[in-house]
Amino acid sequence: MLSSPATDLDQVDQLNGLYGTAHRLCSTPGSQVCLVLSLEREIDLFELEQLCDAVGWSRRPLRRVRKALQHSLLVVGLWRHDPRLPRLVGFARCTGDGVIEATVWDVAVHPLYQGAGLGKQLMVFVLDQLRAMQVERVSLFADPGVVSFYGNQGWELEPQNRRCAFWYSP
Amino acid sequence: MLSSPATDLDQVDQLNGLYGTAHRLCSTPGSQVCLVLSLEREIDLFELEQLCDAVGWSRRPLRRVRKALQHSLLVVGLWRHDPRLPRLVGFARCTGDGVIEATVWDVAVHPLYQGAGLGKQLMVFVLDQLRAMQVERVSLFADPGVVSFYGNQGWELEPQNRRCAFWYSP
Repeated sequence: MLSSPATDLDQVDQLNGLYGTAHRLCSTPGSQVCLVLSLEREIDLFELEQLCDAVGWSRRPLRRVRKALQHSLLVVGLWRHDPRLPRLVGFARCTGDGVIEATVWDVAVHPLYQGAGLGKQLMVFVLDQLRAMQVERVSLFADPGVVSFYGNQGWELEPQNRRCAFWYSP
Repeated sequence: MLSSPATDLDQVDQLNGLYGTAHRLCSTPGSQVCLVLSLEREIDLFELEQLCDAVGWSRRPLRRVRKALQHSLLVVGLWRHDPRLPRLVGFARCTGDGVIEATVWDVAVHPLYQGAGLGKQLMVFVLDQLRAMQVERVSLFADPGVVSFYGNQGWELEPQNRRCAFWYSP
């Protein structure tokens, strides 16, 4: 059944209300599920913790996570649309000065939703936001398993033989 | 000639006035020059540009540099003390959320002041500030020429075989 223009507008209003006007629908061919990228929909910290559990990340105190999100340059949620209760199925955030440097952290897609190109759409969305800010350069630290994922999307791996270094608080 | 305690106090007041109470004097054995690390003394953008020229970095529009500094987590100047006109001879800054992640950028010491351990003292000062914030992890991208500099100071190079990736704005 084709939806009428009025119904389409109703749906746009509903999506804007749930995810903010800067939301983007993901392309999910052959799927009945509607997945939405949003900058504005507030992330529930318990739901984020469940997502991090699902991808195997270690837990952090929620009050520290809250503060880290508050001080991030960009926080993106990938939501499985439901008019009553959208579910968080993906996430990424950036720190940075918003002008010269931005750094991407904590890119996650729930295992049940992996393999459908959502990680790539999430990263395109992140880079589109940073491009709109006119950030010069975006950086990230890629685990061995995702080096080709980023390489295939135009990221330069270790340009000028740069190496990454970490210092961990004692 | 030994200075009297009163004179010492005068000097502390002077240094606090110029560099803020959180300043730190650098150790420069055998040198008559007094060098001071400061979080609080405002960086003159033209002076910063001269420092960047001296270390061979490409120039950026000053309005973008100003905004980047305003949105940095931490900005540190290394000053050659002069009661009338302190000169900027070193610099470093960090971006980050101030809780989980911080990233160090733009570490520079003027060539005339290199080789005296000032870069190391600058980095110790930066890490002390980040430790006081209770940041979990600090990261940076090391050019080939400074990989051993960071390795010798306890930075872990490419832990878990992570690789750095950059995306440059078109």
